[in-house]
Amino acid sequence: VSREWKAESTRVRLPGGLTIGGEEVIVMAGPCSVESERQILAAARTVRESGATVLRAGAFKPRSSPYSFQGLGRAGLELLARAREETGLLIVTEAMDAEGMAAVVELADIVQIGARNMQNYSLLKLAGRIQKPVLLKRGLSATIQELLLSAEYILAEGNPNVVLCERGVRGFDPATRNLLDLSAIPVVHGLSHLPIIADPSHGTGHRDMVMPMAKAAVAAGADGLLVEVHPTPDRALSDGAQSLYPEQFDRLMKEVRLIAEAIGRRVAEPAEIRA
Amino acid sequence: VSREWKAESTRVRLPGGLTIGGEEVIVMAGPCSVESERQILAAARTVRESGATVLRAGAFKPRSSPYSFQGLGRAGLELLARAREETGLLIVTEAMDAEGMAAVVELADIVQIGARNMQNYSLLKLAGRIQKPVLLKRGLSATIQELLLSAEYILAEGNPNVVLCERGVRGFDPATRNLLDLSAIPVVHGLSHLPIIADPSHGTGHRDMVMPMAKAAVAAGADGLLVEVHPTPDRALSDGAQSLYPEQFDRLMKEVRLIAEAIGRRVAEPAEIRA
Amino acid sequence: VSREWKAESTRVRLPGGLTIGGEEVIVMAGPCSVESERQILAAARTVRESGATVLRAGAFKPRSSPYSFQGLGRAGLELLARAREETGLLIVTEAMDAEGMAAVVELADIVQIGARNMQNYSLLKLAGRIQKPVLLKRGLSATIQELLLSAEYILAEGNPNVVLCERGVRGFDPATRNLLDLSAIPVVHGLSHLPIIADPSHGTGHRDMVMPMAKAAVAAGADGLLVEVHPTPDRALSDGAQSLYPEQFDRLMKEVRLIAEAIGRRVAEPAEIRA
Amino acid sequence: VSREWKAESTRVRLPGGLTIGGEEVIVMAGPCSVESERQILAAARTVRESGATVLRAGAFKPRSSPYSFQGLGRAGLELLARAREETGLLIVTEAMDAEGMAAVVELADIVQIGARNMQNYSLLKLAGRIQKPVLLKRGLSATIQELLLSAEYILAEGNPNVVLCERGVRGFDPATRNLLDLSAIPVVHGLSHLPIIADPSHGTGHRDMVMPMAKAAVAAGADGLLVEVHPTPDRALSDGAQSLYPEQFDRLMKEVRLIAEAIGRRVAEPAEIRA
Repeated sequence: VSREWKAESTRVRLPGGLTIGGEEVIVMAGPCSVESERQILAAARTVRESGATVLRAGAFKPRSSPYSFQGLGRAGLELLARAREETGLLIVTEAMDAEGMAAVVELADIVQIGARNMQNYSLLKLAGRIQKPVLLKRGLSATIQELLLSAEYILAEGNPNVVLCERGVRGFDPATRNLLDLSAIPVVHGLSHLPIIADPSHGTGHRDMVMPMAKAAVAAGADGLLVEVHPTPDRALSDGAQSLYPEQFDRLMKEVRLIAEAIGRRVAEPAEIRA
Repeated sequence: VSREWKAESTRVRLPGGLTIGGEEVIVMAGPCSVESERQILAAARTVRESGATVLRAGAFKPRSSPYSFQGLGRAGLELLARAREETGLLIVTEAMDAEGMAAVVELADIVQIGARNMQNYSLLKLAGRIQKPVLLKRGLSATIQELLLSAEYILAEGNPNVVLCERGVRGFDPATRNLLDLSAIPVVHGLSHLPIIADPSHGTGHRDMVMPMAKAAVAAGADGLLVEVHPTPDRALSDGAQSLYPEQFDRLMKEVRLIAEAIGRRVAEPAEIRA
Repeated sequence: VSREWKAESTRVRLPGGLTIGGEEVIVMAGPCSVESERQILAAARTVRESGATVLRAGAFKPRSSPYSFQGLGRAGLELLARAREETGLLIVTEAMDAEGMAAVVELADIVQIGARNMQNYSLLKLAGRIQKPVLLKRGLSATIQELLLSAEYILAEGNPNVVLCERGVRGFDPATRNLLDLSAIPVVHGLSHLPIIADPSHGTGHRDMVMPMAKAAVAAGADGLLVEVHPTPDRALSDGAQSLYPEQFDRLMKEVRLIAEAIGRRVAEPAEIRA
Repeated sequence: VSREWKAESTRVRLPGGLTIGGEEVIVMAGPCSVESERQILAAARTVRESGATVLRAGAFKPRSSPYSFQGLGRAGLELLARAREETGLLIVTEAMDAEGMAAVVELADIVQIGARNMQNYSLLKLAGRIQKPVLLKRGLSATIQELLLSAEYILAEGNPNVVLCERGVRGFDPATRNLLDLSAIPVVHGLSHLPIIADPSHGTGHRDMVMPMAKAAVAAGADGLLVEVHPTPDRALSDGAQSLYPEQFDRLMKEVRLIAEAIGRRVAEPAEIRA
């Protein structure tokens, strides 16, 4: 994954002509979890309307407690397929193990490996053998070097299409859920040819901080954003406090477009997927 | 796993009559990895002679880089079986995925889940369905609460025999590899009925600090120790710098016995396994 | 310092009509230390030319080792006065103790209290009794709550003109010197009426990361920047590796202006000081 | 402070024949703050009876909030003098600035520099010019290297009698107030000839963890302990939750004596002060 081996930046191609790692900034948005048909379709429509190009939502959810909502599983994947059909959005969703990987890879346009599994090497090797792009999230206390070595596990198995994601590291200040380390963006861009996006929702844990940190991430050079948006955050089954209201997300998109332009980039628009 | 549900401390019973979580302190020792028949037998003999009751060594090794030595796999397990046969030591070794779990559970007396997999919930659930005790290591930036919730995944599936292990959290001081958080011992003993042991080898990363920190762990109330010992640390394929020389381990055992006595406990001796 | 006591944001007025905490973004730039007349005048001219409005440079330097360069002391303050005379730039420089405070307050337009002294309460109380604005840097492992309580020490003594500064907290990744916590900006803006600026030079420790992180800070809503610029970084007596070359700073100013505009603010220009 | 300059361990001599850094383990105990004559005399008597040789208590208190109890100041010092007169205990108390240093140095047997002031270089230099031993506490996010460099400021000014103190670093787990880094003990003993003691009260923040961590510190080789004990912790003006009840401290002393013996040391006893 080092720039010493490949100086040119990797552009990860997505279905419909989008690329991550080029000029455009890709916005992936949606709820933490798929909760119901009604919820996911509402979420998909609203984020598409505001300009997102990828729908994010979990069917298999890694939760700290075994007694928390664990996601709808395969049924959730089917609902995501329906949302794609209806909106044309691409789908990114997480796989947590071999069985989940087999299911997710069939459906998703991008397969996510979560922060807790960043050093689950068996899963990384599986991800290296699929034909879909992989979104690899940084572990809660992983150095950039360790993140890149984990990506190396995927590339070493034959899959060059890896997108990294900064989502906050473990910090000491209870004012935020995690500590979003935006310096990871220039560090990764300096050391590696892989693209990197930022997740300001998990990175901060509070709705009010998502907007400034999303703009900051784009200004720092992030190749995309992963943002939690829920049609009714107050009733979300998980991560409600960090999910944007639809109107907040709409405003965010407008502001992010201005920031992207200020640094000579542009936000990819849904129309392009259809192209 | 909470003391509110079960006030009495859990005693995890091992083959041969040993228990973890009672009066005795269990010392598990051996090399980082199984490297060869000669190495593992030499290691087993030396740690048994000094008084260890469990042999530790990895056959499946989780390594940050895909290009590092990854362990001998199933062949390593067979060598561990031979070492047990010859020395009578019990075996603790790590499983990293479903396939590895199936292999390890057949052989090992205690199945280890490593720090990187502490929140690999699929693996935790598998561990909850086996009939062997599980050694669950604390993740690099996991709170005690998160460690206990991960243990809960195992108990919720039906396996009550979980031993926790403090092995150092991510710190900021390059003087040590990790920051061994010995306060985890009284915190766990206060909140949970599960036993907890300490790994001063990964916890410090330097041979010279293993001895004082091992004694400190026992003084703090640890129910056991997990210590890296190698017949020839300078030629170790992994973790050489933190592996004790056999004569250091011998001295450590003597000192640890004195500390255990000072707090009214005693170190379990190999003779008991045969009993 | 809480918004509950004073809902309206504090605007700290500087000589020459500038304010921190209003629409404009204030850029403070210059070398880590005053080293010589030639160096500081060259630095002042170059940062002014590129558009900075405040000159930063230390005369009294807090250094981890007693054997490192400790600054020119009072002689450094005189050189700063000369630089102000020649360029019209305002001056921000650090005071480390009662004696230094007496000297600095006579000369500087803004008195800096460094990260190491954020909880030096005697110094904070002194700063509360001066008539100049105070730039209070966040301690290396201070929570935002603790930063605000330290500011409270200054306000409680009668000085309402406090500007906070995020300059990176202690992180675990050696890829950066510190971990610049840009979420501090929205957190402070949410909890307090005080303005906050960012120091991407100490925040990252590497010249190449200063530019993206400076832009990110402005996008996140920072009320100003504190940037290290040296006429010849390779010969700097301190912090050379994180000091920008003059041409880099010039480019940074251009890019920061675009980011400021994108969020509806503007960078204060030197002309305003003369007004 | 490096062992390369002076291989032999420094023994800091205290009045009455005690030394820190030799065979004996010195226990310093007492309340967080001097609150009243009655309180400090009761505390002094009880800790002496249980076997402490040094009374700890603050007259000048560094508090995060300007609205918290700030200590009795000079009146507190006088009460400490009275406690010494009555019990024969030595006194350790903190100085926060030049003025406080002048007052404390007259009275105290050991002058403490607190964690918040570990990099207050002006104060360190003052401490280097006094004739009393200095207890230098590790800053909340200071590396051992930085702690040693701060000690170097004191030695460089001519005072060789410095005792270091590990009191917990900033951690991420809310289960403890700080993260007591006991590995600092062997690290310091390896790099430096200076003695080091541990403060398990600030290091954990919870009374119930003080006892196991105090024993662990001694087992790890600490040259002494600094423990908060209050005659009536529930009515303490500061740090009540981490202060031991007198009967707990009495038990602690008994257990610490056994640990010290197990590693070939012994706890210094009050009788020796009179000698």
